[in-house]
Amino acid sequence: MTYCLGMLLEDGLILMTDTRTNAGVDNFSTFRKLHILADGPGLQVYAATAGSLSVSQSVISELREDHLEPGDGAANRSIAEAQTMFQVAQLVGEAVERTRETIGAALAREHIDHRVELLVGGRVGDGPLKLFLIYSIGNFIECTRDVPFMQIGETKYGRPILDRALRHATPLPEAVKIGFLSFDGTMRSNLGVAHAIDVLVLPADPAVPAAARRIHADDAYFCSITDRWADVLYESAIGLPDPDWVPDIRSARLRSASGPAG
Amino acid sequence: MTYCLGMLLEDGLILMTDTRTNAGVDNFSTFRKLHILADGPGLQVYAATAGSLSVSQSVISELREDHLEPGDGAANRSIAEAQTMFQVAQLVGEAVERTRETIGAALAREHIDHRVELLVGGRVGDGPLKLFLIYSIGNFIECTRDVPFMQIGETKYGRPILDRALRHATPLPEAVKIGFLSFDGTMRSNLGVAHAIDVLVLPADPAVPAAARRIHADDAYFCSITDRWADVLYESAIGLPDPDWVPDIRSARLRSASGPAG
Repeated sequence: MTYCLGMLLEDGLILMTDTRTNAGVDNFSTFRKLHILADGPGLQVYAATAGSLSVSQSVISELREDHLEPGDGAANRSIAEAQTMFQVAQLVGEAVERTRETIGAALAREHIDHRVELLVGGRVGDGPLKLFLIYSIGNFIECTRDVPFMQIGETKYGRPILDRALRHATPLPEAVKIGFLSFDGTMRSNLGVAHAIDVLVLPADPAVPAAARRIHADDAYFCSITDRWADVLYESAIGLPDPDWVPDIRSARLRSASGPAG
Repeated sequence: MTYCLGMLLEDGLILMTDTRTNAGVDNFSTFRKLHILADGPGLQVYAATAGSLSVSQSVISELREDHLEPGDGAANRSIAEAQTMFQVAQLVGEAVERTRETIGAALAREHIDHRVELLVGGRVGDGPLKLFLIYSIGNFIECTRDVPFMQIGETKYGRPILDRALRHATPLPEAVKIGFLSFDGTMRSNLGVAHAIDVLVLPADPAVPAAARRIHADDAYFCSITDRWADVLYESAIGLPDPDWVPDIRSARLRSASGPAG
């Protein structure tokens, strides 16, 4: 399993991925799922991948090799030549489709899951930051400000905190923090999602450099906020008023134990 | 979709179910999924169902009709004659298996999902309260105090709050409240889970009567705690310290807008 989260905010783009891969619970490993497809002046493209590792690695490698040989005759064949992020998403979708027809078809014949999904985000030239979710058959959707995040992989456990706390206007440090809470909820419920977490922050202001960080299981900041979050959740839930129609046999016992009052 | 939650606590048993059924988003309805299988002195058995409505209703009806005709020769064939909750769970599992072989097989031939799962809880005689999860092929597991809850249906969105806030020692009113927060998180993320919520509370103390309630979408208590919960989650998340390595271009802008300081 995998969990990848992308956020497209007023202040920038954030991508987060876990690094656990597994083929059964007795065969797991650590692989990078946050990839750099282009990272130069005027072109920054990053991808997060979920699904069959052999398929997703092939998609990424194919896109990078196209990148190494720009201008081989086919118009806009490589990401280096893309004029817009929409064209980048098209190129990634086409690579997914090609890989699906080769490795994917071979896996399908053996009834092995060959699905793969990607989050692709970045910027071409002075264009705006964009974020796309590329599906398993190469089609894709674009993130809009109404719901400023996209998820792939194990999406459900970590979604309620995003629905409630993340807005398009959320500043980048707060958004990273909310993303960590989303990952924490997922990792507590699904062993297939685990540290390290790779994080990339690409500010909307091109003058501010991108920040990348790998968060390990013993990261002091991550542990401190997730420990405090567990306490906050528990105390906040307990602090809400109780329903008055549910019998509280505990306090009845305590009253009875304290004997009659005069 | 459906969400059913059972909690087996020191102070009692709680079952909660939503009431939405749907066959596609353009065909949804309201059905009771919390059923009374026995409710007399010395025998209280309740079931929550998820999955194909035609299959689950047949399972429940079959169990009730067995109940109407106890002592027809087959030993312990009806819930009325069960000596333990384990025997009750066996009877429910057998009813699931029989229905699977008839209606289930017919649905399977048409490639229609015929899976069904049940939470079955209650008490036989002076025995302890028990809670079982009966799977689609009739096998089952019993709830233990390490993880004092079981879920069927759309289980993931509502799980993190249970993992963090519910304990075996949680008093009944608090547990109902935590259950409502779990339902609220699920209903916000999956349209297939919706009000009304049926709730049953069976105290461990046999002298305290069971309490049942149907919670509609406009229930004042439910709305007040879930509204406050959304605020609490947002404020608590924002209140945690921010990571120091993420560029905050918002405050940089504000500093720049306020002009140089002398």
